[in-house]
Amino acid sequence: MKLHFLGTGSSYPTTQRGVSATVLQHDDGSLWLFDCGEGTQIQAQRATISRQKITNIFVTHLHGDHVFGLPGLLCTISSQMALTAEEIKKRCPVVDIFGPLGIKRFINTALTTSHSPLNFHYRVNELVPEEVQYPENWEDMNAGVFTSHCHPSELSGSHIKATTDSNGNVHWQLKDDEHWNVTAGWIHHRVPTFGFVVKEKDRVGTLDKNKLLALGIKPGPVYGQLKEGKSIITEDGKTVTPHMVLGPPYPGRTVVILGDTSDASPLAHLVQSCDVVVHEATYDDTLKDKAVENGHSTPLQAVTFAKTIGAKTLLLNHFSQRYKAKCKANSKEEESISIIEEQALIASVGSSVHIQCADDMFVYDVPARSRDMLSN
Amino acid sequence: MKLHFLGTGSSYPTTQRGVSATVLQHDDGSLWLFDCGEGTQIQAQRATISRQKITNIFVTHLHGDHVFGLPGLLCTISSQMALTAEEIKKRCPVVDIFGPLGIKRFINTALTTSHSPLNFHYRVNELVPEEVQYPENWEDMNAGVFTSHCHPSELSGSHIKATTDSNGNVHWQLKDDEHWNVTAGWIHHRVPTFGFVVKEKDRVGTLDKNKLLALGIKPGPVYGQLKEGKSIITEDGKTVTPHMVLGPPYPGRTVVILGDTSDASPLAHLVQSCDVVVHEATYDDTLKDKAVENGHSTPLQAVTFAKTIGAKTLLLNHFSQRYKAKCKANSKEEESISIIEEQALIASVGSSVHIQCADDMFVYDVPARSRDMLSN
Repeated sequence: MKLHFLGTGSSYPTTQRGVSATVLQHDDGSLWLFDCGEGTQIQAQRATISRQKITNIFVTHLHGDHVFGLPGLLCTISSQMALTAEEIKKRCPVVDIFGPLGIKRFINTALTTSHSPLNFHYRVNELVPEEVQYPENWEDMNAGVFTSHCHPSELSGSHIKATTDSNGNVHWQLKDDEHWNVTAGWIHHRVPTFGFVVKEKDRVGTLDKNKLLALGIKPGPVYGQLKEGKSIITEDGKTVTPHMVLGPPYPGRTVVILGDTSDASPLAHLVQSCDVVVHEATYDDTLKDKAVENGHSTPLQAVTFAKTIGAKTLLLNHFSQRYKAKCKANSKEEESISIIEEQALIASVGSSVHIQCADDMFVYDVPARSRDMLSN
Repeated sequence: MKLHFLGTGSSYPTTQRGVSATVLQHDDGSLWLFDCGEGTQIQAQRATISRQKITNIFVTHLHGDHVFGLPGLLCTISSQMALTAEEIKKRCPVVDIFGPLGIKRFINTALTTSHSPLNFHYRVNELVPEEVQYPENWEDMNAGVFTSHCHPSELSGSHIKATTDSNGNVHWQLKDDEHWNVTAGWIHHRVPTFGFVVKEKDRVGTLDKNKLLALGIKPGPVYGQLKEGKSIITEDGKTVTPHMVLGPPYPGRTVVILGDTSDASPLAHLVQSCDVVVHEATYDDTLKDKAVENGHSTPLQAVTFAKTIGAKTLLLNHFSQRYKAKCKANSKEEESISIIEEQALIASVGSSVHIQCADDMFVYDVPARSRDMLSN
C-alpha cells in the first residue's frame, strides 16, 4: 500500500501547493481517493496516477478545498473511458462515493446543471452526522442539503447513520468485506467532519511448495481450495488442512486519514494501534489559538493524537499556504514547513512515532507488518 | 485593454493547459473574467492577476470546463479580503455574474453545501436561452435548473430575456452605461451557449492646454465641466464649448469573446467590425466532422467567422489537449498548435485578419484605434 499526497495545502490551491487530496494505492493497483479539492485531477496527472483506477472516494467534509474538484474529476474519468454504449450499460458502479450529508446534492447539481452524462455509474453514500457535529448557525446557512433525485449516471446510494457502542461511542460503518473494514468517526471542526479508519484484513499466507510436494499434492485446483481455507483429501486418503501447508498470514495494516480538525479525540476509540495516521497541522504551535479558533491543529496536537492511537507513523498535511515547501523557501526569513516539522519532532521526543511532513507529490510506502504481528 | 489567456485547453485541465478562462483587463485595472474552468484561480495566480480586482464574470455556457472553477474562485476572493464586518456590510456587490439559466443554482448549491459565507456580495444575472438553443434531450437531463433561493452573500439578480430586433435577430442586453455596452448573442453548441460583444464607448479627448491658456482659462473646476461636455462662460463673458478645447475623442474598441461553437453565425448581426475576436478551434481542419459533431470548430471555420464580422485580429483558443503548446511539443511527430496556426494562416490568405493561437499566460494588448476612426 502506498499513500500519494496530491495536495497538502489548506484553504485554496496555489502554484506551490494543491488543496486536499490523498490517494491510497492498494497492492492490486486500485485507488481510493480521500478528499478532492479543486485541481485534484491535474495533480493526479502530475503524479502519473491513473484516474480510471479510482474505485472509491471518501470525503471528510464539504468545505470547498476538500470537494470542489470532484465534479471535474468525475467528468474527466468519464471522458477518458473509451467504452461502447453496450459496455457502459454492463458496467457495475465503478465509483463509490462516501461523504457527509449534502455531498449528493452538490455532485448532482454540478453534473446536472453542466449537462454532464457520465460513461460510468457512481453511487453516493451519505454519512448522516450526529447532532453534536453541527455548529450553532448551521440552519441559517444550510437551506436543505438533502436531495433524493438521482443523476442519470447515478445509482441509488444509502444514508449511513451512526452506530453507538456499549460505551456510548459512535462510528459509521462504510465497508466490511473479505479484504477491508472501513469505518468513520467524527472529529471537531467548523462543519460536520469525519476521519476514516481503513483496516486491511489479514491476508492468507503463501503456500509452502516444499511441504505440498512432500505431502504428494501436485499443482491444481486444490491449491486454490487450500488458500481459501478449505481442507482437502489427497489421493491416498490423507486430510490436509490449510495450516499444514500455508506460511504465516500477512497481518493487515491500519491506515487512518483524518479531515480538518481541532480535536480528533471523538474518533480515537476506533483505533487501538495503527501503521500510519494522516493528520492536519494547518498552523505551527505559536499560532495555536488561531488554529483552534478556525477548527484546525498544530504539530503538538497532531503528535499527541498520534500517540493516543498508537500510531507508528504520523504524516502531517493541510498546511497554511504561508508555509512554503522546504525546497521552495527562498530565504531563512520565509516560513517553510521545516517549522512545522521541527515542532512535531520536539513533541514526539520520548515516543517512537516516526514523523514526516508531506509536500505535494510525496509518496509514502506503508511498510508490511512483521509476520508475527497480526492486525487488531 | 489587455486580454490574459489563463486557460486555453478544452474538456479537462492538464499540466500543460488549463481550461477556459480569459481575463479582459481594463485601462483602470479592473478585470472582467470570461469563463472559469477548474483551476482558474491557480492560473490567475500564475499570471499574477489580482483576483480581488474581478468585478464581472461572464460565463458562455455551463459545461464543467467553463464553470467548475467558479465556486472556488469566489471563496478565494473572499478569504483574501481583509475587511471588518462593518466594511463588508457597506460594500456594494463587487462581483456581477452573467451566465445561462442554471448558473445561479450551481453557484448557490456549491456555496451552500460547502457552508461558505463570503466577505462580499455577488449577484447572478441569468440569460434565459431561446427555444432554438436547447438540444432535443434537454429535459431528460435537466431536472430543474431554476432556483429563486439566494445564498446569504447573494443579492437578488435578474433574468435577462432575449430582445428581438426588426429583422428577427435576437440579442441579450447585459450592460449599457457611460463606458460600456455589453450584449450577448447565441451560438451553436451542444448546450445553450453565448458569445459576448463588449463595446467600449468613445472616450472624450484630452484637453488642449495651449488652447485653454490662449482663451485665458486657468486650471480649475471648469476643466472638469468641459471634459464632461458642458460649455462654460469665461470671466470676460466669452462662451467656450468643449469642442473648442478638446482633442479628438478616443474611439472605443470592440472585443468579441465566444464560447464553444460549431457555428457562431447567429451572433454575427451584433458586430459590424471589431478589434479582436476570441474564437475556439478545438480541432484542426482534418478533423472537421468530429469537431462539428461535438459542437466545435476548426481554424477554417474560425477564420471565416472572423472575416464575416470584420475582425482585425482573431485569437484562437480552446484546443484539444492533443495539441501541445509550440514550445512543449517534443518531437516533429507530436501534434502542436502549430498545425492549427498554419491552417488558420492559410485560410486567412487574401484578408487582413491578424491571427494568433493563444497559449496559457499569453497576453494580448488590444491596440488603441486610430483617433480618426470612431467605434461603431
